[in-house]
Order: sequence, then C-alpha cells, then structure tokens
Amino acid sequence: MSATTTAPAQAASTATATPPSPEHILQTGLAFWASKTLLSAVEMEVFTELARGPESLEVLTGRLGLHPRGSRDFLDALVALGFLDREDGSYRNTPSTDLFLDKHKPSYIGGMLEMANKRLYLQWGRLTIALRTGERQSEEPGEENLFAALYADPARLKGFLKAMTGISRGANLAIASKFPWAKYKTVADCGTAQGDLIVQVALKNTHLQGIGFDLPEVAPIFEEYVEENRLSSRVQFKPGSFFTDPLPKVDVIMMGHILHDWSLDEKKMLIRKAYEAVPEGGAFIAYDSIIDDDRRKNAFGLLMSLNMLVETPAGFDYTGADCQGWMKEAGFRETRVEHLVGPDSMVIGIK
Amino acid sequence: MSATTTAPAQAASTATATPPSPEHILQTGLAFWASKTLLSAVEMEVFTELARGPESLEVLTGRLGLHPRGSRDFLDALVALGFLDREDGSYRNTPSTDLFLDKHKPSYIGGMLEMANKRLYLQWGRLTIALRTGERQSEEPGEENLFAALYADPARLKGFLKAMTGISRGANLAIASKFPWAKYKTVADCGTAQGDLIVQVALKNTHLQGIGFDLPEVAPIFEEYVEENRLSSRVQFKPGSFFTDPLPKVDVIMMGHILHDWSLDEKKMLIRKAYEAVPEGGAFIAYDSIIDDDRRKNAFGLLMSLNMLVETPAGFDYTGADCQGWMKEAGFRETRVEHLVGPDSMVIGIK
Repeated sequence: MSATTTAPAQAASTATATPPSPEHILQTGLAFWASKTLLSAVEMEVFTELARGPESLEVLTGRLGLHPRGSRDFLDALVALGFLDREDGSYRNTPSTDLFLDKHKPSYIGGMLEMANKRLYLQWGRLTIALRTGERQSEEPGEENLFAALYADPARLKGFLKAMTGISRGANLAIASKFPWAKYKTVADCGTAQGDLIVQVALKNTHLQGIGFDLPEVAPIFEEYVEENRLSSRVQFKPGSFFTDPLPKVDVIMMGHILHDWSLDEKKMLIRKAYEAVPEGGAFIAYDSIIDDDRRKNAFGLLMSLNMLVETPAGFDYTGADCQGWMKEAGFRETRVEHLVGPDSMVIGIK
Repeated sequence: MSATTTAPAQAASTATATPPSPEHILQTGLAFWASKTLLSAVEMEVFTELARGPESLEVLTGRLGLHPRGSRDFLDALVALGFLDREDGSYRNTPSTDLFLDKHKPSYIGGMLEMANKRLYLQWGRLTIALRTGERQSEEPGEENLFAALYADPARLKGFLKAMTGISRGANLAIASKFPWAKYKTVADCGTAQGDLIVQVALKNTHLQGIGFDLPEVAPIFEEYVEENRLSSRVQFKPGSFFTDPLPKVDVIMMGHILHDWSLDEKKMLIRKAYEAVPEGGAFIAYDSIIDDDRRKNAFGLLMSLNMLVETPAGFDYTGADCQGWMKEAGFRETRVEHLVGPDSMVIGIK
C-alpha cells in the first residue's frame, strides 16, 4: 500500500498548485464507488470463477448470478480499474488478481476485503457518530467485545485470521529478511492468528525454534497452516492470553498488528510483558502501520487509527516516537524504527 | 476528475508488472476509508469552520463537537490526505478546500459530497444486491421515484440542485467556451436544476437568449441563481416536464447529466423531443460522463452507471457511439463527441 502512503504528497502539491482544482476532492469523496465495486467482486468470487479460465459476458453473468441490467457495467468497471482484462469479449483475471484474489490459491489475500465488505464498510458509514462520541460502531448492538465475539464463532474466526494473513504477508516477509535473526535462537509471535509471521520467519531462518501464542481456539487453524508449510518440527502452538498469562520465555517476542487494537494502558502492559519474557540482549519487535512522527505523511496509518476508533473500544495507532517512548519506559535500553513495506514499519526494542 | 479517468491505465501497468503486487488491490479495497473521512469532514463543516482562520486542535475539537479520542487522528488524516495544512499546531484549509468546501463561498461544491454522504454511501453498501436483482437500493423502502421524492421537499430539492451545480461546473464552463455559439441565438437547458449550465453559457456568450426548463418547483431556486449572476434580462425560467410537455422551441437544446438517469426508451424519447424542438441546422448537446467506445478507459463513467443502478429504476450511462446511434435514429444528420473536463464529454447532434 505504498501508493496510499505516498499519495498525500502528490495530493498536497496538487492542492497548492494554481489555480486550485476540485478534482482531488471529488475523486476522494466518491472513491467508495471503486472500493465497493472491488469488494462486491471479491464477495461474489469473480476472480475465483475466472481463475478457471476466460469467460464471455453471458456465461459469467449466469455463473455469478448477476442481473443483466448491471453485469456489463460491473465487469467493464473492473476492467477500467485494472482488476480484469478483456479481449475479444472474454473477461479474464489480471496477473495480480489471479494470484491474490483466487480463493483456491494459498496467495489469496481477499480475507481482509471480505471483512471490509461484511463489517467495516457499514461501520465506517457511522464514522461521524464515532467521531462525536468516541465510541466504536459495532454492527451488532450489544456486541461489547469484538475479539470475544470473533473467537466464539469458529467460521468467523477462521475468516478473521485469514484476513490478518492477507494484510500482513508483505510485512512478514520483510521481517523474516531484515531482522538480524542469526543472533537469536528462539522466537514467539504473540497474537499469532493463522501464524504467517512466525511461519515466514522460520522458513527464512532455518536455525530458529518458534512459538505461536494465541487463545486456544486458534490452535487448529494455526497447526493446519504450520503443517502446510512443513514446519511442525520447529514451530509449536502455545495457548494463552496475553492479558492473563505471562508470555513465552524466548529470545525474541513479536507482535504484529496487535498493539494498535488496545488502549494506552493495555499497550504499556503488553510491552512490559514482552520485556519480562526476553533475556538480557533479547528483542521485542512490534509492527503496525506506524504513523510518521510528524503525523502528516502516512495517511494509511492515520486512517487505520480511525478504523480502530470505529472497531474497538479504545484502540489507536501510534508513531515510532510514541512506541519507542513506551519501550524505554518499560526498560528496553535501545530502540529503533525500521520501515517494512507500504505503510508498515517495525519498532524494535533491545533489552 | 481526470485522475479517476487516467488511473486505470497506471493500475493496469502496475498489475502486469513482474512480480504481481497486492498494493493496488488493498489500496482500492480500503479506499472507502479516505472517502468517508472526507465525507464526514464535509458533513461536520470542518472547512467552513476553518475558512474563518487557522485553529488549534483543542479549539477545533470543541467547535466541531468532536470527541477527543478520534479528533487528532481525524484532522491529521485530513492533513495527510492533502485536504488540510497544519503549521505550529494550527490547522488550516488548503487553497482548494478553502475555495471548494467553504459553504459560505459561491464556489462551494460540497453539495454532491453531502448527497454522497447522506444517501449514496449506504445505497452502495447494497451494491451486491443491486447487481443480483437489477433493482435500485433506495434508502427509504417504498420511495418509488427518486425525483418525485426530491421535488416534494423544498430543502432536499435545493440541496440536490446545488449538488448538481457542484459536480457540473467544470463541464459547464467548457461547453460555454468550446461550442460554436456564434452561429446560434437561442438556447434552452432542459432539466436545468439550479441553472449553472445556462448561466455559464449566457455569461460567456452575451448575444444569447436562454431558457431554463424544469419542473415548476425549481423556479425560485433557478431565478435566485440567475439574479445573483445578473442575467435576468437574458435568461428565463420555463416550467414544464420533459416527459409530458414539448421542449421549448430554440436553436440549441442542452441536457446535462440527464440522459443517464433514464431507461433506453426514455433516452430515445428525450432525444426525439430535442430533435422536434430545434430548427433545421439547430443543435442538441447532451453531456454526461460518456463512457469510451471500447468501455475500458473511463472508469468513472462506468462507476457512474453503477451509481444509476443503485439510485434509479432503469438509468445507465452510455458510450459516445451509443448516443450518436440514438441521435442518428432520431434524425440528426451530423453527430460528434467532444471531451469536456475529467470524465465528462458532450455528444452533439446537428439537425
């Protein structure tokens, strides 16, 4: 998502050009049209269907259960937006939608978009209320705890965990390569979800022993994924809650897209627990869509923080300086921020 | 909105680069975050407030009635998206948001975004249902006719008509300059709304006598706007329905963002009426977000057609070739398409 991250600079320069133009305003204000078109295409499995081969308008309209009134506009809009190709009247996936939006491929990242389509789009529809009240806008009144509700429903949980893999893959690969793993022997990923971070780190660094730490409900989904990646001998699941249990004792503790879910006090508590879990010289890696310290460049990080506003009781995203301050407060002697991919960076604390 | 129109080409080239990247997919799928952030800012009149002068976070949070939990992220997200500037802790409008999103300026174009925020965002939330059924997704069940409902409520009508001015201004200015007006003496704009098209054409071409044709409810809003522009001596309102009444007899008939609202039969009926209204050598100008003939470039035009799907019983957007065909069928001897601004083009028929 680096385009999202770099767009603001272009936008700002457009905005200050003479004479001022309304284009950026109208384009952004109506950007939900393109967004929802792609989300509906993912929901209706357009790309999974076309992964079987190119299809004509008529066949595709029937297979997808579309009404003829809108089907041609819908499919041609996907062509114009760069998500489908069309040749001699046959629609087919682009290389990137074929790789990332075909449900039958392990590279599928549509889970995040399924979640956006099912829940986030409507919750964001109540953004003004969230901004006025400071309260999350749950789709189900009375659903007090997002994560409790997610974990109580195995199908919904698997969808959520896969969504997390989809949105994290690029950052996970970067951490597996960029961090000086040769110095360490054991690592635990806390709030591991499907386990893609620990899997990518272990695949790239064959000397490491890894633990995925999460609530017990996650075990079967995690273990299936580890087995698919033939890592069962080096990567184990450890059930537990990072609220009520100590974290596993290892050389490196990782938390990916975890800290931003929680309040300031909860963030500090989690960082303290990470400090307690690692030995002298051990490391804590936290990654999120870290906001730039001046809070004016990483639009995606700031929007992600508004996403935490509409989705969680007290979560928010934060700058590298914020996180380094909390790490210092917990006792880490050395801290630094390193960019990963797109809007994501990692903050590293060394004990 | 040319950026919307040209984006697909960039997107397509990104998509076919090696290796495929998920960025364009994730960025588009979550683009509704930036969209809704801007729409909420327009709803809460952030830019109208800041047109009075720069303000600190604390003052602005109070004035706008924001909760402290999200206010800083919200305002900094608007900075990162290029809609606000921030210096020494003070927020201020950019030149373009100051010009186009301050409600007290005649250049305000936020009406379209207010409408998007109040109605379209939620209707688009039901896009999948619309695609499966072919039926519009009204926000109020039983509201059979969008326009009847709009015209029955004076406040809502004024909002809608101003929204139409906001989205049409650039195209209206282009038509006022590009069309060979010297050849003609009289012109009528049918479905004139607030009257910005006829006003811009008359301001630029001082020899013309103009008529704004629309339902009688529109008269006071139209006449106020014409008076503000000191055109009352040359531009008159004529009440009528383009369904049940003949169009005014003039040299040139114009319809801006009208044809796309209606079914194929209704489109052809309107074109036939335009043909009947003008003399030999007279002209008919229809403008919309005309889709390119190959239906693969003008993403905005295709998305606008999906907007007609969710908003109207049978409306759809069309290509220049489609419209020229209907004009030829109605009897126009000569037709051509000319680009205006952004996604908008005009189709001209000469009798």
